[in-house]
Amino acid sequence: MTHVAVDLLGGDGAPDAVVNGIDSALGTDESLEVSLVGPSGVAERLLAERRLAVGGRLRLVEAPHLIGPGQDAAREVRSRRDATVRVATRLIRDGVVDAVVSAGPFEALVAAASFTLGPAPGATRPALAVLLGSPSRPTILLDAGAATGASADQLVQYAVVGSAYATVCLDVARPRIGLLVAGPVHRGGPRLDAGRPGVGGPAAGGSGAGGLGAGELLAGLGLDFVGAVDAAGVVAGGQADVVVCDGSIGAVVVSWLQAVAESGDQPPQVQPGWYPQEGAFVVGVDGIVVVAGGRSGSTGSGIARAIAQASVADRSGWVPRQRAALADLVARRRTRAGLSA
Amino acid sequence: MTHVAVDLLGGDGAPDAVVNGIDSALGTDESLEVSLVGPSGVAERLLAERRLAVGGRLRLVEAPHLIGPGQDAAREVRSRRDATVRVATRLIRDGVVDAVVSAGPFEALVAAASFTLGPAPGATRPALAVLLGSPSRPTILLDAGAATGASADQLVQYAVVGSAYATVCLDVARPRIGLLVAGPVHRGGPRLDAGRPGVGGPAAGGSGAGGLGAGELLAGLGLDFVGAVDAAGVVAGGQADVVVCDGSIGAVVVSWLQAVAESGDQPPQVQPGWYPQEGAFVVGVDGIVVVAGGRSGSTGSGIARAIAQASVADRSGWVPRQRAALADLVARRRTRAGLSA
Repeated sequence: MTHVAVDLLGGDGAPDAVVNGIDSALGTDESLEVSLVGPSGVAERLLAERRLAVGGRLRLVEAPHLIGPGQDAAREVRSRRDATVRVATRLIRDGVVDAVVSAGPFEALVAAASFTLGPAPGATRPALAVLLGSPSRPTILLDAGAATGASADQLVQYAVVGSAYATVCLDVARPRIGLLVAGPVHRGGPRLDAGRPGVGGPAAGGSGAGGLGAGELLAGLGLDFVGAVDAAGVVAGGQADVVVCDGSIGAVVVSWLQAVAESGDQPPQVQPGWYPQEGAFVVGVDGIVVVAGGRSGSTGSGIARAIAQASVADRSGWVPRQRAALADLVARRRTRAGLSA
Repeated sequence: MTHVAVDLLGGDGAPDAVVNGIDSALGTDESLEVSLVGPSGVAERLLAERRLAVGGRLRLVEAPHLIGPGQDAAREVRSRRDATVRVATRLIRDGVVDAVVSAGPFEALVAAASFTLGPAPGATRPALAVLLGSPSRPTILLDAGAATGASADQLVQYAVVGSAYATVCLDVARPRIGLLVAGPVHRGGPRLDAGRPGVGGPAAGGSGAGGLGAGELLAGLGLDFVGAVDAAGVVAGGQADVVVCDGSIGAVVVSWLQAVAESGDQPPQVQPGWYPQEGAFVVGVDGIVVVAGGRSGSTGSGIARAIAQASVADRSGWVPRQRAALADLVARRRTRAGLSA
């Protein structure tokens, strides 16, 4: 069984869409258990309306407070023990559930996960991994905006955990990793930011350990590192399975593609071409944490897909997989520091 | 008459596409003159093949050297007096032509324009203005990648000249100006980078004159400043006619939208929805300079449209318009410095 805690209050469609999503997910997946985290009164009313019984594979966990959108989400997380994201991540920490899903502000969820679960051993910051592209050929982009100003070492972390995540959710044995550079306005021109720290081409990026750029560090890790990639190469050429960039850039890419995809009359699920798929996966924290963001976060089907994404991660053994992927980085750091590996 | 110098050698389709574009432009617009800037031998052969006669509205200007894509384009511009972009911009400076069009690397063209024409009085750096969106409702985005690390004062410059450009090419009497922030991955969440210099929400942006952010500076300028906008607001809501951002962000937006638009089987001209339209307009230099970039830069029709864009700018009196738009900024700076306005 996979047991997922779901935030009842997060997202534009909450609480109704959340309960609809849980209903659908429980119906589809008989190996799924859900803990619904929110105000019990609200939960009981919604479940009764749908004739859903508590007990068996559906439980209620009391948490009265929603951390809404706002600049202080991360700070508010620390002061509100009764917030849904705090209670939900505590359920992971205490071994009650295997994963958390919330459609609330990603800042609150990432902050709660960092605070309660801590970083995965070897990771120094979390990142958001988002699937871009058509369902038949998706690409993972990270960081989609969890943080800005990544160092070369942190871009390497993103690559390592992004590669591990690609083996889980893209079913690619040996994912190709690319470092994103801003594409030239004139195709064929030079890369705009090849020398800019934190975005970096293979020889650029913030200066990392030993003064090496992210590309140089990556080239020594045994991953399938394809070097610098730009938008055209990724979209038209499928040059990489995993695209790594600073969160300031990733957030821009995702927000514009999402806005364009959602501007049509077709929902993103059936629209051909490139768009961010729902469910940003939080890497770098020591647990399974999924943000059901975008338009999908306000629909029951979007919540159900985010729950499914969390279940896939759990059944593939994401937590030990991520630890194993980062272990090599840890060993290299120890060696550089003169410690035994 | 409007006289446009066109770079024979720039762009993936050069020199054939360039000559085709000129042929088309001259046929469409009887008030157009063109100086074809490139190696005379190549030009004469291509013109002969098309039975185009030199003389009348078509002239040849010798320039043997192309500055191709590469990291050193800007430096190479300074050392190569015989480069097509150097010769072409010199024709503007000497009053021979009214505008320059090149489909070569934008870095080379921007560098040549800055070097030969200098900045427009009041401007401290050039920027690339690009049209995004469907032809029926375009939005101007700048800077699309001419430079990175814009200060609050420079974002204000972009807004001022972008607004002037919108009156020319969008035919909007009082353009609405927005400062771009990275959209939230979860819609409705807080802006990711509201506090980050150079991208800035209305109260953010790099600290400018008197410690004010770009938004505060803009609010005092008498423009129709609508505050911070994000991707969803611009694409779905049409919240602004002109969107201002640092070049590091603008380049990412344009390159991804372009890559997605070009990934379909339809050419961008007929594809519905959002895409960057051809012909980046260089603002902040004291002359009319158009980059025929993207896929369009390699086709005759793209070159013809870039020439038409340059002609529209000339006939609307772009150079004095830009100077007038910037004059208010100059007066404010003088006042702040204790000089008479």
